[in-house]
Amino acid sequence: MAAGVAAGCALVGATALAEAKKTEEEDAPVQPGLFKPELPTYALSDVQEHTSSKKGGIWVVYKHGVYDVTKFVATHPGGTKILLAAGKSIEPFWQLFAAHNHAHVHRILEGLRIGNLREEDVIALEKLRKERYGDGPYSQDPVRHPALKINSSQPFNAEPPPELLMESFITPNELFFVRNHLPVPNVNIEDYKLKITGLGIGEGKEVTFTLDELKTKFKHRTIATTIQCAGNRRAEMSGIKQVNGLSWDTTALSTANWTGVALSDVLESLGVKEEDCRPVHECAVSENIENCDDCNSVIQHVQFEGLDVDAEGKSYGASIPFSTALDPRKDVLLAFEMNGEPIPRDHGYPLRVIVPGTVGARNVKFLHRIVLSHEESPSFWQQKDYRGFPPNVDYQTEDYWKFAGASIQELPVQSAITEPKHGMTIAVEDLSDSSFVTIKGYAWSCGGRNILRVDVSIDGGMSWFPAELHKSGARQKYNRAWAWTPWVLDVEVPAGVKELEILCKAVDSSYNVQPDSIAPIWNMRGVLNNAWHRVRVELVEEEPGEEGSEE
Amino acid sequence: MAAGVAAGCALVGATALAEAKKTEEEDAPVQPGLFKPELPTYALSDVQEHTSSKKGGIWVVYKHGVYDVTKFVATHPGGTKILLAAGKSIEPFWQLFAAHNHAHVHRILEGLRIGNLREEDVIALEKLRKERYGDGPYSQDPVRHPALKINSSQPFNAEPPPELLMESFITPNELFFVRNHLPVPNVNIEDYKLKITGLGIGEGKEVTFTLDELKTKFKHRTIATTIQCAGNRRAEMSGIKQVNGLSWDTTALSTANWTGVALSDVLESLGVKEEDCRPVHECAVSENIENCDDCNSVIQHVQFEGLDVDAEGKSYGASIPFSTALDPRKDVLLAFEMNGEPIPRDHGYPLRVIVPGTVGARNVKFLHRIVLSHEESPSFWQQKDYRGFPPNVDYQTEDYWKFAGASIQELPVQSAITEPKHGMTIAVEDLSDSSFVTIKGYAWSCGGRNILRVDVSIDGGMSWFPAELHKSGARQKYNRAWAWTPWVLDVEVPAGVKELEILCKAVDSSYNVQPDSIAPIWNMRGVLNNAWHRVRVELVEEEPGEEGSEE
Repeated sequence: MAAGVAAGCALVGATALAEAKKTEEEDAPVQPGLFKPELPTYALSDVQEHTSSKKGGIWVVYKHGVYDVTKFVATHPGGTKILLAAGKSIEPFWQLFAAHNHAHVHRILEGLRIGNLREEDVIALEKLRKERYGDGPYSQDPVRHPALKINSSQPFNAEPPPELLMESFITPNELFFVRNHLPVPNVNIEDYKLKITGLGIGEGKEVTFTLDELKTKFKHRTIATTIQCAGNRRAEMSGIKQVNGLSWDTTALSTANWTGVALSDVLESLGVKEEDCRPVHECAVSENIENCDDCNSVIQHVQFEGLDVDAEGKSYGASIPFSTALDPRKDVLLAFEMNGEPIPRDHGYPLRVIVPGTVGARNVKFLHRIVLSHEESPSFWQQKDYRGFPPNVDYQTEDYWKFAGASIQELPVQSAITEPKHGMTIAVEDLSDSSFVTIKGYAWSCGGRNILRVDVSIDGGMSWFPAELHKSGARQKYNRAWAWTPWVLDVEVPAGVKELEILCKAVDSSYNVQPDSIAPIWNMRGVLNNAWHRVRVELVEEEPGEEGSEE
Repeated sequence: MAAGVAAGCALVGATALAEAKKTEEEDAPVQPGLFKPELPTYALSDVQEHTSSKKGGIWVVYKHGVYDVTKFVATHPGGTKILLAAGKSIEPFWQLFAAHNHAHVHRILEGLRIGNLREEDVIALEKLRKERYGDGPYSQDPVRHPALKINSSQPFNAEPPPELLMESFITPNELFFVRNHLPVPNVNIEDYKLKITGLGIGEGKEVTFTLDELKTKFKHRTIATTIQCAGNRRAEMSGIKQVNGLSWDTTALSTANWTGVALSDVLESLGVKEEDCRPVHECAVSENIENCDDCNSVIQHVQFEGLDVDAEGKSYGASIPFSTALDPRKDVLLAFEMNGEPIPRDHGYPLRVIVPGTVGARNVKFLHRIVLSHEESPSFWQQKDYRGFPPNVDYQTEDYWKFAGASIQELPVQSAITEPKHGMTIAVEDLSDSSFVTIKGYAWSCGGRNILRVDVSIDGGMSWFPAELHKSGARQKYNRAWAWTPWVLDVEVPAGVKELEILCKAVDSSYNVQPDSIAPIWNMRGVLNNAWHRVRVELVEEEPGEEGSEE
């Protein structure tokens, strides 16, 4: 029978159709960094001279061990991040990125062993490590909600269960996805100051604000914004060909009401103007085309630095174009509240820059410094990470770096199915009759573009049904639609269907659409996956006495 | 041999692989609108009462004939445009849209015949027609360049040959594609005035500017902008399933330097402010979400009217969001020059609104009136035309109108191959060796989004090569890249290949991409086709003595 909408079906548990496969071979433990008398001994100063693959290779140190990682760089799962440790001890980095605490990693390392580090250097490095970290860099991280699915615990990266995420337009703070690059800083608000410096402020000058000063000097604004990680849906992309990075599923995004002051108001109060970003000379016939490079004296980018620091004491950092920062219509906030509460530590306490419609990586947390510059942020995450690559380029490609695209700011139009979940079994009353299945999901586009439509297919894309869009999502202002649009659709599944593939794709207000398939947008960093989302489920007849069978 | 780049090949003529098929059956002439004594007679006032499919049906008149077109509306190739003539004579409309002057159209019309029009009404309508048009509405249209490929002569619609279009970054005025909806007005500049009226100007008030006043009161600006028709590449979409509209190939777009004054400067001089578009009441927690409809007193849209008029004397019209008009970063111009010359008549003399990064239809030509309103333009072209529809909806769908998407403003990321042309034969020196083929094309995205990359494939999309981007295209300002990015690539074709399919797809600065295929974005209006572009060519060995064979 094809009774009322969604009446005849119920979701019964998460019986995954295909579980993640585990290698059967158990990794035998290997203790890395022990002294090996048969190998030569080097001073730390020797190691420090080996920082380039073109000049003597790249060496690193781990306890007593000296290693040549020159050839390993191309296959390092963390990509070029390993270069941060060139000529240094990798131990402080491994403490930050706990994924290295595995026997197979230790075995790889020992395979690259070339010597021993001088005893006095080993002692000096160990002393430094203890001073810096005591009980370990992550010992001060906050406690998290148990519902979060953890992709990496150090640094902490986790996404909410899809069926909980779509319960509300605004995500509760506890369920908001967490993407940390480093340990969460423990900020004493009494000591906290925001510093602003760079072009337009004056040579060597610095303007500072306490949090109270920011709150009292500028008008408060509240904006509903979705933040999405560039790596959302990376797990699907890995299914085509292995990529580097955290294996995010479909919920590396969430939505909150952020309250703060407009960055454009703050910049205006400092006398920073639109004109500061225009060359003083007329170098082009058409005003929108630049014909010269002599623009070092004008502000082009606004750099942000967080209080979270790496093993070297360097801040997490990122930047956005000056035109975005200065435009009041872009709604960039220096936010101190998340859903009406002080921003939780995991999400940027005490101050976070919110750049609506822009990839999560630029929404810098624990913000403590703003630099107005003619250049993008010099940080690793702006320069080397979060960029697109063509589908044919991987770490084996010669000079792969020359194919790197612009650092990601806006993300492409996106949608995904959150219910039913991939691999689920759905109980229906009678398989010999048609039945209704309720499908839920989200759609979002960057740059403020509104979601116009979400199409759903259950026949592989031959025919499509428009979903019902959530009222709050659909009522956002034109080109200021910073938050997602949740959607729902009840589809009639024909009689006899036991395996169902569900597809969705969204259309935004520029009528951009999601591409049909992943392979043509595959990239070695595993970012920017916005191909049609596909979910496969099984339909079974429910047993007498089960929920829904009495109707 | 695989000699130097593009050396071993030459394009030899346009030997189309597949010519357009013509129906062999000759249409026998039928003279419509003759008096038929066996049918009842109606007064024009009777006909005027039949304007709705729900109340007595839709009637129209042609000379002596009265016709019931109620059931024909759904299959009318011009879509709902036929409703403009409901209860009226269709003759003035047929004079504007010359596609009706065919025997098969006349035969369809007589098949819908239900009666005769009263003699005195026939005479009155004929008198009116002569007064209005004299020698015909298009007799004053300008002379056009013979290179243009004409898709419709009345109104005039034509596109440049692709191999000429990509000869230069800026399109010469004579080759710029022409998309007219109506006859070109013959404007006497002595009589010309731009009128501005509506909300923010004052009840019943009107501000006027002569062209000289506009030129002397405001700063001149020059912007390089590509204008694209929403129907560009419609011909390919028709290949999937028939759509309504002009059969544009791949060049319903061109690029010019437009000089004029900023609409934002003009509005500012009139005291029209950002605040005029914000509700006075606070109706939402989040500033970017509107929770009420009580916004009739604030400016939401800027309507434009041209001096080109339809059979009823109504102007062509369109509108854009007020936020676009008022934002100086959106570069909306009231333009009076095109590539340094007064705008040619076909392109909007004496004044045209240029809305960079927005579909051609909103760049209203022959601009003579601006209305600030809480509503979009009431014109047919804003309300009923230029909207997206889901792929499963066509004119046979019940209540198809309820599936209409928002009126198109920005268009999705686009690219196409302009050389070689589809169906061409390419001569290479030696088919038993590999050879190089030069591929050219354009890429463009709306909303100012820059083109980051164009990928080309010759193996059906299994592997992709990034093309070389034109310097002027690539150097446009971030999110103000209003003009296209031409590109070129020399690809090596393996030995033995005689049939080649070439594909291209572009990536813009929001990392949006073109979808793989047309069917999932098919829509009954045939607009918004931005699927991967595909071109098929044949490779043949060149005869001795042919161009290029001596190398």
